Amino acid sequence: MPMNILLAGSFDDEAEHRQWAAALDAALRPALPGGHRLLSARGEVPDETIAAAIVANPPPGSLQGLPQLRLIQSLWAGVDRLLADATLPPGVPVARMVDPMMNEAMAETALWAVLALHRGFFTYARQQAAGRWQPLAQRRADELPVLVLGAGQMGGTVARRLAANGYPVTVWRRQAPAAGAGQAAVNAVHEVHGPDGLGTALAGAQVLLNLLPLTPETRGLINARLLAALPRGAGLVNLARGAHVLDADLLAALDAGQIGHAVLDVFSTEPLPADHRYWQHPQVSVLPHAAAMTDARTAAAIAAANIAALAAGRPIANLVQRATGY
Amino acid sequence: MPMNILLAGSFDDEAEHRQWAAALDAALRPALPGGHRLLSARGEVPDETIAAAIVANPPPGSLQGLPQLRLIQSLWAGVDRLLADATLPPGVPVARMVDPMMNEAMAETALWAVLALHRGFFTYARQQAAGRWQPLAQRRADELPVLVLGAGQMGGTVARRLAANGYPVTVWRRQAPAAGAGQAAVNAVHEVHGPDGLGTALAGAQVLLNLLPLTPETRGLINARLLAALPRGAGLVNLARGAHVLDADLLAALDAGQIGHAVLDVFSTEPLPADHRYWQHPQVSVLPHAAAMTDARTAAAIAAANIAALAAGRPIANLVQRATGY
Repeated sequence: MPMNILLAGSFDDEAEHRQWAAALDAALRPALPGGHRLLSARGEVPDETIAAAIVANPPPGSLQGLPQLRLIQSLWAGVDRLLADATLPPGVPVARMVDPMMNEAMAETALWAVLALHRGFFTYARQQAAGRWQPLAQRRADELPVLVLGAGQMGGTVARRLAANGYPVTVWRRQAPAAGAGQAAVNAVHEVHGPDGLGTALAGAQVLLNLLPLTPETRGLINARLLAALPRGAGLVNLARGAHVLDADLLAALDAGQIGHAVLDVFSTEPLPADHRYWQHPQVSVLPHAAAMTDARTAAAIAAANIAALAAGRPIANLVQRATGY
Repeated sequence: MPMNILLAGSFDDEAEHRQWAAALDAALRPALPGGHRLLSARGEVPDETIAAAIVANPPPGSLQGLPQLRLIQSLWAGVDRLLADATLPPGVPVARMVDPMMNEAMAETALWAVLALHRGFFTYARQQAAGRWQPLAQRRADELPVLVLGAGQMGGTVARRLAANGYPVTVWRRQAPAAGAGQAAVNAVHEVHGPDGLGTALAGAQVLLNLLPLTPETRGLINARLLAALPRGAGLVNLARGAHVLDADLLAALDAGQIGHAVLDVFSTEPLPADHRYWQHPQVSVLPHAAAMTDARTAAAIAAANIAALAAGRPIANLVQRATGY
């Protein structure tokens, strides 16, 4: 019997919606030999026949009243907005997207930002605007320690890429992994845990790069106290969530020279409001939440594989622990 | 008997001169057990007692009238300005600097520029200045072929670094290496030669990256005809010499959209004159000849080792063929 699957999301526009629907449809066909019907809206079939939902930040309430829903598969890696919906059906497994291509895209953005901070390319852009010709002192990569917050799929991929390009990298996990918990250490980089590990690592870092999941424990982590623990003039790269950063604290640290430059891809409100100081700040690079986008070409197959696992009664990959939020 | 060595250069300032003199003095001490005297000007000792010169773009005429000069060791990798001095003593061997640390610095700048072109970070900077929030379509690294002109120490290091970060890389050599000439192929990247190889490679490249030596054959190579052979909207990165590029042709290609963005570290006149269009062009990133600076910490030891080889009658490394200019 064909499986009814709801596609629910807040896409940028109708073209993006259609692109995803086509990619998912093509990926689901070989994955579900029993057939499927991908629905772009409720009402086309009885609610009680919908077995799975593929979602991309769906409007709150989108998944209410689906009594037979057995899987919510996110197309995005971050599920904080999804989990914040109080109407999300309790007890239904939620899977996040873990797309190796998205991890690579994140590693590219991180490496670009670290190279630019390391070699002064943001400064050179400011100098160009002022018509100023002034070479800067040149440091070697091994003189620029980078601290990556978050040791998950993305933090690990980013840390390994930076290390492969010569940077001394430390990754910080909020909690030491429990013995046998199956969380692999990030190869080839130094790893620290907990508040004590963070304090020491901050003091030795020239660049702080955030890739934490947004949870009640990590919200607002990047505040005045944390920024003050970095060496003067350090760089900040936030590729995770805007709510990790207390904006007033970061602006004060930038104005005081405690942070030399910030690369920000994510913001508490997106798009970043037109009157926000970040837009015009000479020491801030604003990216439009584009550090790593899900690639429909690879992610559709990954989502389809999880739906196939559901249909066949096999284990679902990348399930979110609702209690911890990632 | 101590060896008299002249240090002659056009340094940025007296501090840079002193820094180099101190680094060279420290490196020469263990390298020359017979002792040495490093001279920062002519006249301190008789000209006929000067056996070697360590130079960094010395003013023309600096090395005239040194009858016992047996080696000219450059601190810079590019020797085009040095060789252009008609008063340079004929027959005296010239060695250029080949510093692995400088090659790494060049690879960093090249990788930063390619990542920025690939992921749209120059466009995002323009959008930020205009207060515009607009994510761009995301390509994978394997969708961005890069053509590196020059397969020497720097071209090779840059090509391998780009390939290691996922880019399909082709390197172009002006001439196929003669059999047994000892020019190693660049590992892990595709290599092409001659005018035919260049034409095909240009048509398939999204980024053109120049690391050629400046010689009569390569001067003006990057002209309207070459730029027209690239796909529309390709990026140009010039990290070699300004005279490789015909500026009027490049500006026309930028204005027409044939070249999407250019990263230029080198210029026909340096510093770039205040009224040059490059400064203000929104599709041009101007760097102040800072893509890769010689690192005194490593280069002084490399220069000293060559002076020691001269003193001991051993072969000199990195000799320049004056006929070809590199």
